[in-house]
Amino acid sequence: MQDRITLSHGGGGSMTRELVESVFLPAFGSETLALLEDSAVLRLPPGRVAFTTDAFVVRPLFFRGGDIGRLAVCGTVNDLAVSGAEPRFLSVAFVIEEGLETEILRRVARSIAQAAREAGVQVATGDTKVVEKGAADQLFVTSSGIGEVPEGRRLGAAEIRPGDRVIVSGTLGDHGIAVLSEREGLRFSTPVSSDVAPLNGLAAAALAAGGVHAMRDPTRGGFAAAVNELAAQAGVGAELREEDLPVRPEVQAACDMLGLDPLTVANEGKLVLFAAPDTADRVLAALRAHPLGGHARIAGEATAAHPGIVVVGTRIGGRKILEMPFGEGLPRIC
Amino acid sequence: MQDRITLSHGGGGSMTRELVESVFLPAFGSETLALLEDSAVLRLPPGRVAFTTDAFVVRPLFFRGGDIGRLAVCGTVNDLAVSGAEPRFLSVAFVIEEGLETEILRRVARSIAQAAREAGVQVATGDTKVVEKGAADQLFVTSSGIGEVPEGRRLGAAEIRPGDRVIVSGTLGDHGIAVLSEREGLRFSTPVSSDVAPLNGLAAAALAAGGVHAMRDPTRGGFAAAVNELAAQAGVGAELREEDLPVRPEVQAACDMLGLDPLTVANEGKLVLFAAPDTADRVLAALRAHPLGGHARIAGEATAAHPGIVVVGTRIGGRKILEMPFGEGLPRIC
Repeated sequence: MQDRITLSHGGGGSMTRELVESVFLPAFGSETLALLEDSAVLRLPPGRVAFTTDAFVVRPLFFRGGDIGRLAVCGTVNDLAVSGAEPRFLSVAFVIEEGLETEILRRVARSIAQAAREAGVQVATGDTKVVEKGAADQLFVTSSGIGEVPEGRRLGAAEIRPGDRVIVSGTLGDHGIAVLSEREGLRFSTPVSSDVAPLNGLAAAALAAGGVHAMRDPTRGGFAAAVNELAAQAGVGAELREEDLPVRPEVQAACDMLGLDPLTVANEGKLVLFAAPDTADRVLAALRAHPLGGHARIAGEATAAHPGIVVVGTRIGGRKILEMPFGEGLPRIC
Repeated sequence: MQDRITLSHGGGGSMTRELVESVFLPAFGSETLALLEDSAVLRLPPGRVAFTTDAFVVRPLFFRGGDIGRLAVCGTVNDLAVSGAEPRFLSVAFVIEEGLETEILRRVARSIAQAAREAGVQVATGDTKVVEKGAADQLFVTSSGIGEVPEGRRLGAAEIRPGDRVIVSGTLGDHGIAVLSEREGLRFSTPVSSDVAPLNGLAAAALAAGGVHAMRDPTRGGFAAAVNELAAQAGVGAELREEDLPVRPEVQAACDMLGLDPLTVANEGKLVLFAAPDTADRVLAALRAHPLGGHARIAGEATAAHPGIVVVGTRIGGRKILEMPFGEGLPRIC
């Protein structure tokens, strides 16, 4: 296998086969994938199936705590998990810029395989395209996923009721600041790591506690986008307490310096949950008992008042509206 | 909605929502997609499920007979169909270069919707990312698909036996030459149109005739890659007749001019089938009775001799080996 990817590696001939056999199959080692047919044929139990897709264009490809491969697996697994599904199978499609070092692709493939193992999912099928130098920025990865939705499980904005508690599973803004620090070469006394992690185990723990009505993973647009979207779709308002929206001091410091609100910065390993008031404490305890939920908090509640409006009570006793971010914040953060 | 796509449209905030609501929802109009949850939750009957993914980077985005949107739907539907599955649900993920005209995205979305209607599949979920000007070439589309595999259906290279007839469903090389003509501004007296079409109906007709052991859609690498791959995986050889591998005169003329072998040029609306000798005539008749299979031919047969080697008997009585293409042929043809 050559040191760099060439256009021929995307041509569908013997060079493509060499790439698959020397880079992807050793990493993924999936029996299904190894058949090299046009589709993977899978067995699923009867019932509902969740299906999701995400494109990843993060820059740089590698950052403290993760890389584009781990991000692709976790982003897809987490979209399935917050829909109440148990993630089972993933696809990965690569768009590669001609000249990319093969070793970079190998590292990304190994990272995909590692994250898939953590999440208990199988990489079932994939595709590779190569474009000329300058027609893409190194590497884009699109991952799709299939999960099983257990019978009787109902989750989603439509289930949210006024009085539901709003719960966050940990500190907010870590991923976005980690990527931005890497990209801009910022140095902090305490470096920020991305929180990118598969959340299916954490979500299952929360669901087992009972009374969870809706979940989101607050990625692009951060906590602010996730909670505004859920409130708008559910037709409820929300009243939150700033002191119960945990932000690491180093993330807050970076945001202050950059003029960002950490509540609008992407997370890749956190959940926002709406849970019935009588089970919220049990959900909180279940989250805290999980390695990825140690800093979980009940941050406030859904209200019948001011539907679609999210209000945060500040530490100094004020009240401010937490708006849906416009979108200008941080490009290529995932 | 603005005339051009900006980075903010990929930020996950209100601008992303505006893009989804003004471009994608009107085109796809899918009830599932309209829920705007992180995953689509679908119902599938019990049984086996086929899962596939493909990235599309074709240049230019629009060409005679199709565009990147139609290509994405058909490519994915066809990968499912040749696996013996009945395609049901698609996802589409867009990577957009900042500055792309919104109208281009609208045209692509409408084309996706049209092709999905033709194929009888539903666009269930999607994603949009935007990268800076120069970090991608206009638009890349990655599509994944889910199909149902009827109980008892067994298709694949492992089912191929020596003596099986090799059948092609029509003329070879049309798609690649259509895209290349558009890209290079070539003019022919009879312009070549891409054959891009959903093949699930054609595949179903062939399967209903009985005795089909394996199918492929000969895309990148063309007929040569598809038949070599199947022969190698099945451990058989193949003996084919050049005069029964149909090539349009205008495609042959373009290939002669460009120094290409039409058997290595991509198709997006053709099937290669291996069928039992006693049912091959019925399969041929079924293909020919379908609007997409009028030029179908039995082109030769699988052999126990020279496993993995595909031999073509030429019109002038010679014999040549049809090799697996290396990959250098035509970049960004799909």
